[in-house]
Amino acid sequence: MSRVFVALGVSVDGYVAGPNRGPKNPLGDRGPSLHEWAFKQQSFLRHLSLPGDGETGDNDRVCASIFDRIGANIMGKRMFDEGEANWPANAPFNNHVFVVTKEKRASWERPGGTVFHFVNEPIERVLERARDAAGNKDVRISGGRDIVRQYLNAGLVDELLLSVTPVIMGEGLRLLEGVDRQKVALAIEETIATPQVTHVRYRVKRA
Amino acid sequence: MSRVFVALGVSVDGYVAGPNRGPKNPLGDRGPSLHEWAFKQQSFLRHLSLPGDGETGDNDRVCASIFDRIGANIMGKRMFDEGEANWPANAPFNNHVFVVTKEKRASWERPGGTVFHFVNEPIERVLERARDAAGNKDVRISGGRDIVRQYLNAGLVDELLLSVTPVIMGEGLRLLEGVDRQKVALAIEETIATPQVTHVRYRVKRA
Repeated sequence: MSRVFVALGVSVDGYVAGPNRGPKNPLGDRGPSLHEWAFKQQSFLRHLSLPGDGETGDNDRVCASIFDRIGANIMGKRMFDEGEANWPANAPFNNHVFVVTKEKRASWERPGGTVFHFVNEPIERVLERARDAAGNKDVRISGGRDIVRQYLNAGLVDELLLSVTPVIMGEGLRLLEGVDRQKVALAIEETIATPQVTHVRYRVKRA
Repeated sequence: MSRVFVALGVSVDGYVAGPNRGPKNPLGDRGPSLHEWAFKQQSFLRHLSLPGDGETGDNDRVCASIFDRIGANIMGKRMFDEGEANWPANAPFNNHVFVVTKEKRASWERPGGTVFHFVNEPIERVLERARDAAGNKDVRISGGRDIVRQYLNAGLVDELLLSVTPVIMGEGLRLLEGVDRQKVALAIEETIATPQVTHVRYRVKRA
């Protein structure tokens, strides 16, 4: 059965976004610094049809393995709103993206195979839809922080991959704030250490 | 020249202590869970003259290397107060410990070679004393969170070793809260990954 996973870049102090987020400032002040490592990887550049060769080391293997396994994405409305204004025409998803929102809107197909579906349903039902779309591949809860928290607290996430960069963010959105430790427990499954980033893959269990 | 380092166990969400800390509850609720890995290591048990063989893998090597390099410790008053009631007679330091406090108190020698000195001086001057006591060995800023933050923000720390356990703490003291990102920058120097803990050694630089 396909797995449900979260893969996020976080600062050393646990933030996934900086302060003052919005469509004109995606990820907030200094937030993009959390993903600088990813932007340099070959698999990332190819996935977005961007120019440049990119790096091909361990960070690229992490990046590529994320893209390879995604069969469908689930995303919060705010992440979509922040992204919509800033993603290239070829949005970096290449498959079905279920946007959890109260807004009614027809599905929106982008070049490269990304199709956004706007769904106003309980997160359990949204996950069922994503599983159906994903087939044998995995479902990524893409973000933002709030929807990740909802899925974690509902016990619906199998795996949490944190790519920790040595950035001190200091303010913004902390990934695990509000995650219920009485419901959610983590165990290290794999660590891929590079000089730039520490990738830790946690298995998520019911506490 | 000897280095000034911090080595702390932290939760995956960045806490070094849980809520409700005090002499009767050192490290706060669930705080000791951050150090469970260490309590099992051979070097830790031997250092404290505790019974048992302990583990001898990578976690033990990290633990042993911390003990080996310490020439002197610096500690805040609250950490001392929490520890005093709970450390075994053979307090786990085995050398000079400078406790930053307004309290006047004569030096206090413990079995095993630990000597606590109570100093009411600026942190820069306390560090000079600790360097003198350490000789060629390193100075550890032992904790708690507040004194670590003071030394980090003063640009006096060379190295930060975080041993991250897959615990979600949720509340308590966050290590890097209040650390000034405009003054302090980190770079990964080494990562030692084990199935229980992710040890990341950061070089600390002026931002």
